[in-house]
Amino acid sequence: MTANGSAHVNGIKPTTPNFQLASRLKEGRALAQDVWSIFNAANLPADCINLGQGYMNFPPPQWVKDAADEALNTTVGNHYSHPKGRIRLRQAIKKRYDKILGRDLDVETEIQVTSGANEGQYSVFTAFLDSGDEVIMFEPYFDQYLPSVVFNEGKPVYVPLHPPPADMLNTTSNDWTIDFEELRRACTPRTKMIIVNTPHNPVGKVFTREELEKIADIAKEFNLLVMSDEVYDCLVFDGKEHIPIATLPGMWERTVSVYSCGKAFAATGWRVGYLIGPEHIIAPTLAACTRIVFCSNSPLQEAAAAGLEQAEERHFFEKQNKEYEERRNVLVEGFDRLGLKYTLPQGSYFVLLDISSLHWPEDFPFPKSVQGRGRDFRACWFIAMELGVSSIPVSEFYCEEHTEIGERFARFSFCKDLDTLKQAVERLQGLKKFLL
Amino acid sequence: MTANGSAHVNGIKPTTPNFQLASRLKEGRALAQDVWSIFNAANLPADCINLGQGYMNFPPPQWVKDAADEALNTTVGNHYSHPKGRIRLRQAIKKRYDKILGRDLDVETEIQVTSGANEGQYSVFTAFLDSGDEVIMFEPYFDQYLPSVVFNEGKPVYVPLHPPPADMLNTTSNDWTIDFEELRRACTPRTKMIIVNTPHNPVGKVFTREELEKIADIAKEFNLLVMSDEVYDCLVFDGKEHIPIATLPGMWERTVSVYSCGKAFAATGWRVGYLIGPEHIIAPTLAACTRIVFCSNSPLQEAAAAGLEQAEERHFFEKQNKEYEERRNVLVEGFDRLGLKYTLPQGSYFVLLDISSLHWPEDFPFPKSVQGRGRDFRACWFIAMELGVSSIPVSEFYCEEHTEIGERFARFSFCKDLDTLKQAVERLQGLKKFLL
Repeated sequence: MTANGSAHVNGIKPTTPNFQLASRLKEGRALAQDVWSIFNAANLPADCINLGQGYMNFPPPQWVKDAADEALNTTVGNHYSHPKGRIRLRQAIKKRYDKILGRDLDVETEIQVTSGANEGQYSVFTAFLDSGDEVIMFEPYFDQYLPSVVFNEGKPVYVPLHPPPADMLNTTSNDWTIDFEELRRACTPRTKMIIVNTPHNPVGKVFTREELEKIADIAKEFNLLVMSDEVYDCLVFDGKEHIPIATLPGMWERTVSVYSCGKAFAATGWRVGYLIGPEHIIAPTLAACTRIVFCSNSPLQEAAAAGLEQAEERHFFEKQNKEYEERRNVLVEGFDRLGLKYTLPQGSYFVLLDISSLHWPEDFPFPKSVQGRGRDFRACWFIAMELGVSSIPVSEFYCEEHTEIGERFARFSFCKDLDTLKQAVERLQGLKKFLL
Repeated sequence: MTANGSAHVNGIKPTTPNFQLASRLKEGRALAQDVWSIFNAANLPADCINLGQGYMNFPPPQWVKDAADEALNTTVGNHYSHPKGRIRLRQAIKKRYDKILGRDLDVETEIQVTSGANEGQYSVFTAFLDSGDEVIMFEPYFDQYLPSVVFNEGKPVYVPLHPPPADMLNTTSNDWTIDFEELRRACTPRTKMIIVNTPHNPVGKVFTREELEKIADIAKEFNLLVMSDEVYDCLVFDGKEHIPIATLPGMWERTVSVYSCGKAFAATGWRVGYLIGPEHIIAPTLAACTRIVFCSNSPLQEAAAAGLEQAEERHFFEKQNKEYEERRNVLVEGFDRLGLKYTLPQGSYFVLLDISSLHWPEDFPFPKSVQGRGRDFRACWFIAMELGVSSIPVSEFYCEEHTEIGERFARFSFCKDLDTLKQAVERLQGLKKFLL
């Protein structure tokens, strides 16, 4: 490549001078056009209903937002927080999670507020991964895991959740299963961490106690650090119980649990998350956080604190769960009317629709960005363009080798108000004539 | 070290299991007790006036905060922003910096909103540093540079700003000088970047055009990427002109400029900063930012946008500069009354006080944390405990080899209201009897 040459890396044109990118950026799909850009509203019909990206089209509760306003009206609420997080928020986290985790959490050493759950996870990788350390993640995996691991010199190792058989009816997220021998075979002397995501994005699976126990046994056998991504811990349906793996015997000492105020309080743009774990995991993570962002924003930490302080007495999460259950049911009833198979989620806010019976006209025009990707990329593009409802192709959440498992599904988010979901369902009835 | 052993790394006690920390954490002072923890309010007398850490004891302007309130009252203002930053903020940045940088900035490719200037700088290092790449920084340096470079596998290389001779009277920040031959000698085939910080923390130096031209010549000669940390660009006194190095001939293409809404609008806890640079620097940095934090918080981006939109017509920065100039003058008049030497800053909000003539009783009790550090650590501790005014020892901003240069000085912040500064000045008159 010459200084004035036309060669370029994934759309980034070098100009004079041509600075060499860090090699970490050349891995982990960091510069590839990601699924969120391809299925961005700007590329889709103007009136397309967005069931793609997982953010709400409703605001956080007023009583939570009020606390942000109050903080803005003070002086200290506008200035630096302690890198550990504001003490009010750490106290509020303790109030809620002492019960959930069955502990007497130390707010100084066992809780770390982060700039979104994402930055929290990144900081754990920064604190613990060395070159070549292997990190096991279940597929489909939340797409940020891969670059976050790779940027910190880790090596992703994939273990698939196995989808229910194609001909199985009335499947739930519980029908996605782990082959524990396969998991065990993935463990090597270089395996440092395993990421467990429950409730799961995008499958909606709420891991059972038995599954978690088996994972815990393997984690203990191979001395793995467990990152338990529980950002959807407040969104569990049908009376299912969310079990933090940190509560299983011998697991507290090796687990860092990851939470998100954005998911809990419909405030994805506040960038307030938190980590809970033993001091020997939190202290190095604090050192990483402090250097990466120094601290998280102050006014919205105060709001998050108010949310956690008052949630119980207001029965907020119970009510919110009922609302999400209703949203889910509206969406899947739409799929039922079409006779389409899907995975009924028991947690999080995604439905995986089986799109194998969907067929589009042979001459349907697809842009370059979805050609040469999994079949699901074309399916999602077709649905968005033809019917005006966007979704996300699930093969994006698999490594290339396992694309085939993912391309059977499209992910629809139901973190939208009922009217929007009903309208989407009506539009989606138009799929009927494209089903074989 | 056994699993139950008592050995530990810098205060972090391993318990069973004992996870190996990433080696990057063992360098760059990442786990050392930092100066901010030692001189934390919790360790000092309850009524100690804090002129240590650089945050304001006054709030952001009401008209800026109003925009945060407005955003909180919308739905989209509470949800994810684009990883590039909200378009309103990028437009507002363009409005102000088109003039400052003499360009027609492209809001899609040349502006990156970050979660504080700190995370912006970290992301640039993540995007461009490979193992062993050298980064030149002038001493004294903002202490976060070191771990941010090291965490991303870079190697810091130090070039001192030379303080004025000890016997020189009436010194200004301009009397801290660069030995350009020394700078040139520091450049090697592995030098990838140079960090320029103007207005400078903690010296207050506003680099002259001549100095910047000489740095620019070296940057061009050795093909260096320049990180121009201009977070105090709005705080310049005595009619001095702040010159962004990106405006010098041939420099735009190799410079990323770093800015901070926290510094500009007295809102250090908002965590909104931004980077400006050419697409070949911004695009990889966006890829890093997207993975590290995904996006910055939305409501306070809207507030920052309002601030930048309205600053010019409100003459906000001119008025704010006058206020800071008055604050600075109150503080240095206090030092004048004591007959102490100091560096009169032409920018930022710090005064370096020459503490070489300060002597404390031989039996004064010092905690372990300040023993074995530079003499300035004990001086600052003594001043805080004896007189109730905290400051920061400047040797913290030097590598160990150069501690001697820094330990002549204590850094006092004047980003405080006039009453507080006047009270601090009165207290500091108590130094008189400890001066030789």
